Amino acid sequence: MKTATLRARLLEAQLDLARLQERAVMLLLTGHAVTRKGRLVNELNHWLENRHTEVHALAPSSEERERPYWWRFWRRVPDRGRIGIFIHGWYGDALFARAERRLSPGAFRDRLAEIRAFEAELAAEGVVLLKLWMDIDRPAQRRHLQALQADPARAWQLSATDWQRHLQHAAIAALGREMRDATAADHAPWRRLAFQDPAPQLQRVGALLHETLVAPPARPAEVTESVPCETPAPPSIRHAGPRGAAPLKKSDYAERLVEAQGRLAINAREMARRRIPVVLAFEGLDAAGKGGSIHRVTASLDARQYRVHRIAAPSDEELALPWAWRFWRRLPADGRIAIFDRSWYGRVLVERVEGLAPESAWRRAYAEIREFERQLLAHGAVLGKLFLAISQEEQLRRFEARAATPHKRHKLTDEDWRNRERWEDYERAIDEMFARTQSPGAEWTLIACDDKRRARLAVIEEVNRRLEMRLASPH
Amino acid sequence: MKTATLRARLLEAQLDLARLQERAVMLLLTGHAVTRKGRLVNELNHWLENRHTEVHALAPSSEERERPYWWRFWRRVPDRGRIGIFIHGWYGDALFARAERRLSPGAFRDRLAEIRAFEAELAAEGVVLLKLWMDIDRPAQRRHLQALQADPARAWQLSATDWQRHLQHAAIAALGREMRDATAADHAPWRRLAFQDPAPQLQRVGALLHETLVAPPARPAEVTESVPCETPAPPSIRHAGPRGAAPLKKSDYAERLVEAQGRLAINAREMARRRIPVVLAFEGLDAAGKGGSIHRVTASLDARQYRVHRIAAPSDEELALPWAWRFWRRLPADGRIAIFDRSWYGRVLVERVEGLAPESAWRRAYAEIREFERQLLAHGAVLGKLFLAISQEEQLRRFEARAATPHKRHKLTDEDWRNRERWEDYERAIDEMFARTQSPGAEWTLIACDDKRRARLAVIEEVNRRLEMRLASPH
Repeated sequence: MKTATLRARLLEAQLDLARLQERAVMLLLTGHAVTRKGRLVNELNHWLENRHTEVHALAPSSEERERPYWWRFWRRVPDRGRIGIFIHGWYGDALFARAERRLSPGAFRDRLAEIRAFEAELAAEGVVLLKLWMDIDRPAQRRHLQALQADPARAWQLSATDWQRHLQHAAIAALGREMRDATAADHAPWRRLAFQDPAPQLQRVGALLHETLVAPPARPAEVTESVPCETPAPPSIRHAGPRGAAPLKKSDYAERLVEAQGRLAINAREMARRRIPVVLAFEGLDAAGKGGSIHRVTASLDARQYRVHRIAAPSDEELALPWAWRFWRRLPADGRIAIFDRSWYGRVLVERVEGLAPESAWRRAYAEIREFERQLLAHGAVLGKLFLAISQEEQLRRFEARAATPHKRHKLTDEDWRNRERWEDYERAIDEMFARTQSPGAEWTLIACDDKRRARLAVIEEVNRRLEMRLASPH
Repeated sequence: MKTATLRARLLEAQLDLARLQERAVMLLLTGHAVTRKGRLVNELNHWLENRHTEVHALAPSSEERERPYWWRFWRRVPDRGRIGIFIHGWYGDALFARAERRLSPGAFRDRLAEIRAFEAELAAEGVVLLKLWMDIDRPAQRRHLQALQADPARAWQLSATDWQRHLQHAAIAALGREMRDATAADHAPWRRLAFQDPAPQLQRVGALLHETLVAPPARPAEVTESVPCETPAPPSIRHAGPRGAAPLKKSDYAERLVEAQGRLAINAREMARRRIPVVLAFEGLDAAGKGGSIHRVTASLDARQYRVHRIAAPSDEELALPWAWRFWRRLPADGRIAIFDRSWYGRVLVERVEGLAPESAWRRAYAEIREFERQLLAHGAVLGKLFLAISQEEQLRRFEARAATPHKRHKLTDEDWRNRERWEDYERAIDEMFARTQSPGAEWTLIACDDKRRARLAVIEEVNRRLEMRLASPH
């Protein structure tokens, strides 16, 4: 194809992408040093309508270093309709860290598995990936380095790192092969780009990008978590008892509450001091008392340390991005506590039962969620997942009490009554959720809430238990 | 009012705030050291529904330090319906920097003027402000410090800073008075809170917050920029000539374009090296060639350094915040270039002419914009404001050419034709915008675009001129 024709077609395909707003594109370039990646990106970008592109070359900020590794990439996922171009992206990071032995072989393989999971999740959500490996053989790299060095107008582009990567050429080539083999997929293919004259190289990249833009959507990726793990026995909503127990006496409750809250205050302060982030996800049946329980937890916390995120319908900015983005964006910095009042589990509960997400979407969400939680834990976060259950009879009693009390009436909506009619559908979804998202460090805690006092104590005690387990661990 | 009644009413008022989503509340506490601000905030927060509150005590991140001072506060303005509680907020910063002589008296006064402008702008956009000065006399502060010091369970709360602030009690008291006098307003009142037993103090703050929540909206603040300045003579759209000049020959254009783009590449690289941020706002009549001109500018730039922000209708997240928020959120970090394809001037152009903003809103936008731009400049940014003009005849010619060319047809919308019918309304709005937002360092450049080649050259040369002026200045 002639260059002018290619440019016109590429631009047309990009404008279609922007107009339809169905898919986003992520183009990654990584590989050997001094392969003119920057120049290529600049020229390609000049071919595109750059109101709809963004280019990223990362140097993590303090805000990024204080959050799970993938946060820095999640926050840069382009909106549907846009093209994000990443120089090195998550690959350079893995590649060079391994080459410089900052990552062990095992950690490198784990990272590759995380990459597979990340890319599969993006692809399943309509993000199209194209990955370019910039190749150059060792003698050519040496000649190019020497030529740059000798040219006063360009020598500034070189750094000691470039020479070091030249010395490591064989290692980088071998790691690159391993990396490409481990992460090649229909939905995220690798293309190798030989070092050659800039013009044909640009033409090649333009053609590859065009091909990507006009291709029909790839076969949806199968989403799996990067490190599947043993499943501890999950709870079941059908056995949420003991419901028959006598209600806790008010005086006993007050005494135990003070003790538990006092411990929580101390534990939370210690998390801040040790800069450990905490993520608490509260799910539960309507009227089970999520709000009241959260309130009893936050009563012990320093208001500067925590934030409650109430998860309702996504905003239009959130709808333009993969579904998990709105949870990633709310992750706490190190030492902070994020409390989710409803959470990412809405994907496999309300979105499933109400038909808001297609079955294929909520089915793959189990693996996506396991991977999300694994990454939180890998960053050193404490995760608590609490499910607040009540019996059908107790829920009815509470609904009726709410309807009868003026200042509580706002808490009761038509939706609550509708959800109640789908009790069994919800029970089925809840039990499947328990079974499929139970993993070590991310176990579910099912709390029977027919007795409010016992429930609130159980919630605080469970949070304490999780924090204390973490504080007792050596690192 | 009894505490239980107050709590119930406060909660009710907060839930109304959350339900109506018309206003946001910012509550600030500042003042002397060891006045139990943290404790008070925690207790107050416990009275509130904390799904709708957020508490901020700032330690600026690297991302914040790389942007204009007020960015860190703009990004924390609560959404409509929410309450943001700020410990010290922008006041502590000013107060202690002055007390420790990190701010000169003049810089302190300028900061107070910026605060006035910031608060007036927030208030005009429906953010309700309440500011508490936490008072304590010197002997009581000393006694409290000693008591804390002597108590092993609480001594950790103290730092050397607290003792230092005790030694500076008189200075802080005097600065506090000056600060309150300078920033008290109907829309952002100060209340002094005497140091006393926690319970009545909490009661007092609860009552003040309740009063704030149920009060009718304050008389709208008059918005002014903090440091009004001489207005250089503005351009006028009615004299956008020279339109009669002979078109530039293609060969002359190519030669001059290469020269100008080469200079721009060097200038931009120097901005990155010196970590100077650049903000370019492109406005213009439809079909004047904004897109093409921006494209000629970005052709010289490293794609990693810049981003083009196309400003269209606000998202729903943006609509929940003061109008200027969506421009603040897009400000570049130091050394980066943000190019706005349409900008904050939409407020006084399309929003005015099409009646999307009420007259009071676009009228005050002139001062808000002057202040916004002054803050960019104060941070050391280079600002370029380019208005691309064409004659009515030339616009018609281009519209017709677009309609006739298949791959350009998408650029022409019904809105373009509608805007054309309002030519004179737009001219009036444009000239008033020029006159009211012309200020030193933020001058408008009007570029006649009937001849596309001359226009594109003029755009690049104007950007070069601005960058070179900045590079030639001593700091």
